[in-house]
Amino acid sequence: MNIFVINAGSSSLKYQLFKMPAEQPICVGLIERIGLSGSIINHKVFTGGQEKTVREELDLPDHQAALQEVVKLLTEAGTGVIQDPGEIDVVGHRVVHGGERFSDTTVITPAVKEQIKMLFHLAPLHNPGNFQGIEVAENLFHKATQVAVFDTAFHQTMPEKAYRYAIPASFYTQDGVRVYGFHGTSHKYVAAKVGEYLDNPEAKVITIHLGNGCSMAAVKAGKCIDTSMGFTPLDGLIMGTRSGAIDASVVFYLASKLGMPMEQIDNLLNKKSGMLGLTGSSDMREVQKARAAGDPDAILAYEMYAYRIQKYIGSYAAALNGVDALVFTAGVGENDALTRELVCQNMEYLGVHLDQTRNAVRNGSLREINTPESPAKVLVIPTNEELEIANQCCQLLAEVR
Amino acid sequence: MNIFVINAGSSSLKYQLFKMPAEQPICVGLIERIGLSGSIINHKVFTGGQEKTVREELDLPDHQAALQEVVKLLTEAGTGVIQDPGEIDVVGHRVVHGGERFSDTTVITPAVKEQIKMLFHLAPLHNPGNFQGIEVAENLFHKATQVAVFDTAFHQTMPEKAYRYAIPASFYTQDGVRVYGFHGTSHKYVAAKVGEYLDNPEAKVITIHLGNGCSMAAVKAGKCIDTSMGFTPLDGLIMGTRSGAIDASVVFYLASKLGMPMEQIDNLLNKKSGMLGLTGSSDMREVQKARAAGDPDAILAYEMYAYRIQKYIGSYAAALNGVDALVFTAGVGENDALTRELVCQNMEYLGVHLDQTRNAVRNGSLREINTPESPAKVLVIPTNEELEIANQCCQLLAEVR
Repeated sequence: MNIFVINAGSSSLKYQLFKMPAEQPICVGLIERIGLSGSIINHKVFTGGQEKTVREELDLPDHQAALQEVVKLLTEAGTGVIQDPGEIDVVGHRVVHGGERFSDTTVITPAVKEQIKMLFHLAPLHNPGNFQGIEVAENLFHKATQVAVFDTAFHQTMPEKAYRYAIPASFYTQDGVRVYGFHGTSHKYVAAKVGEYLDNPEAKVITIHLGNGCSMAAVKAGKCIDTSMGFTPLDGLIMGTRSGAIDASVVFYLASKLGMPMEQIDNLLNKKSGMLGLTGSSDMREVQKARAAGDPDAILAYEMYAYRIQKYIGSYAAALNGVDALVFTAGVGENDALTRELVCQNMEYLGVHLDQTRNAVRNGSLREINTPESPAKVLVIPTNEELEIANQCCQLLAEVR
Repeated sequence: MNIFVINAGSSSLKYQLFKMPAEQPICVGLIERIGLSGSIINHKVFTGGQEKTVREELDLPDHQAALQEVVKLLTEAGTGVIQDPGEIDVVGHRVVHGGERFSDTTVITPAVKEQIKMLFHLAPLHNPGNFQGIEVAENLFHKATQVAVFDTAFHQTMPEKAYRYAIPASFYTQDGVRVYGFHGTSHKYVAAKVGEYLDNPEAKVITIHLGNGCSMAAVKAGKCIDTSMGFTPLDGLIMGTRSGAIDASVVFYLASKLGMPMEQIDNLLNKKSGMLGLTGSSDMREVQKARAAGDPDAILAYEMYAYRIQKYIGSYAAALNGVDALVFTAGVGENDALTRELVCQNMEYLGVHLDQTRNAVRNGSLREINTPESPAKVLVIPTNEELEIANQCCQLLAEVR
């Protein structure tokens, strides 16, 4: 079965084709600057153990044109891996916001599309792009089953005490203001891997997704019971450009005392804060270099970044009444040994003992980096949201059929 | 030595007279509705083991008139405890915001007053009233040494990684946006009591101040290393009328999607949220009654209130790398056994074992409510901010002289 996974942003489109259930990637690509001049396609084909890369620069006015170009690459001589778009059995769409309506992966129907549209107001930066991707894919892969995998779905098992804010109930019941959480596909994927690895389906796991966006989840027996992003992805950990948790009164102060308009404050906290705001760069490799060179801002930023993660580990250990494993995943989590080292420092009270040598190893597979006698495991697990989406599509169709 | 302690609000004045160093309270009082018609004085005198109460209703146009009335009560026949205002040696003022300038109690000089004035913008609801109290006391007790005790001072030992927000540095360096923390006098007082009780000056202590305002502090060897209130008292725990921590994007959403003006959102989160917003009452006794009667909002609100405290305990245990004692203090912390029970549930991972029988005891003294074999102590310690202020005045003057 060919499953084509799409992650459509407002001006970008990521995609990957899998042969399932073999979990075999056939090709993968990213289109940027859709709707702007000078769109760029980077497309990679994996055939016979070889990798072939195509890079194109052209003007793609919209998502329809972009996906048409992908169909060409999928089918034409030289790069082609299928004869006809009809060979795609399933298109799996990443959809950021599923609200409270979607607690699981679902086949896309007109009613589902209507629901995704109704959630535009909760995810104005993401759901409209995701929706466009669906419409275009329905058009170009009209024989395929279209499936939506929501970034919020995994967090829908949280208890009410964890997802409600202490504001009058009407803001929740009428306006949908609550904790949703994001990165659910990644948290679910790595949490399941830990369960298998520990051979303990009841395990108490804290998953730490550190990419440009960062979030954590407390997972008990495979179910999310709390997460660090909130009503929006702004809350929680310090991120590449987002402040993470901050006293909401800072917003009032910036508005009333400094006269900043609301959109500017929103932009400040989401786009100009975090590691970028503290150090001038949102790239952890850059910040790490600056830290090594003795830059005091970079030293402080690393301390703050790690300390915030430590405090969330602590609070999730309280939520879980202990912890069996910490899991680091995503770009920074998988590759930045320094972050892992700082996070695991002075955490002996929780039974966390890092093995420095194991922590320094860098490879693309699941690895244990705690000392042999550490009561709590510390794991690095490469996340794979696209594969998780393909797997969820498979499972859903097996159930449906 | 007679030390007169003043806590002046915008329309209220609390005061207490101590004979020091005996820590003997001589009289205590509260004036409300200053500047409004029908001001009320409640004044209590303790003499010879007896208590005498005076209640007066009269119009007090300003703080000067209010304190003049207190001086009358202190000196006149019937209620008098001194002959002349000149017998007051020290006036200790509670001042809410000391910014970064004041990390300790200080003798009030013209320069200090200037600094307190410069902090009005950070504490517009509190510092102006505190300042008025100082001016009036200088006038009426002109022979006394005036001393300021700051609510923020105890938290000034926090490391930078704990007090900085992940926003561009200029908002900190130029505008003073950082975590200050409040309730410092109370946290310091109970933390010192724990140190004595455990006979361990290095103890790792988590102090939990639950009144109408609620905050927590992580204290190591008597020094604060983190606290839950932030730039303002809004952040952190769920309180009587404050939401505590909330995704800052909720503010953007309420403004842009629901069209709420900024002052209204500020008022919502500070005055109409917390237990009041969730249940209709900010009085925990009322909420507890409703919960016992099966009211679902009250049941949820209690769960949320306790869960938030549990998560802060967890995060401070991480900050401290373990915990020797949890301390409950202030109105709710000292009197609400249900809150303590819910908070200590499922915390065995941290060595917290509550003794239900001990927890049910209600008295006004320091008490241990954990089981005998509990590795972590759980203590109830009545706070006494006025006495702490008097003690700090004594200590300061001993050093100065």
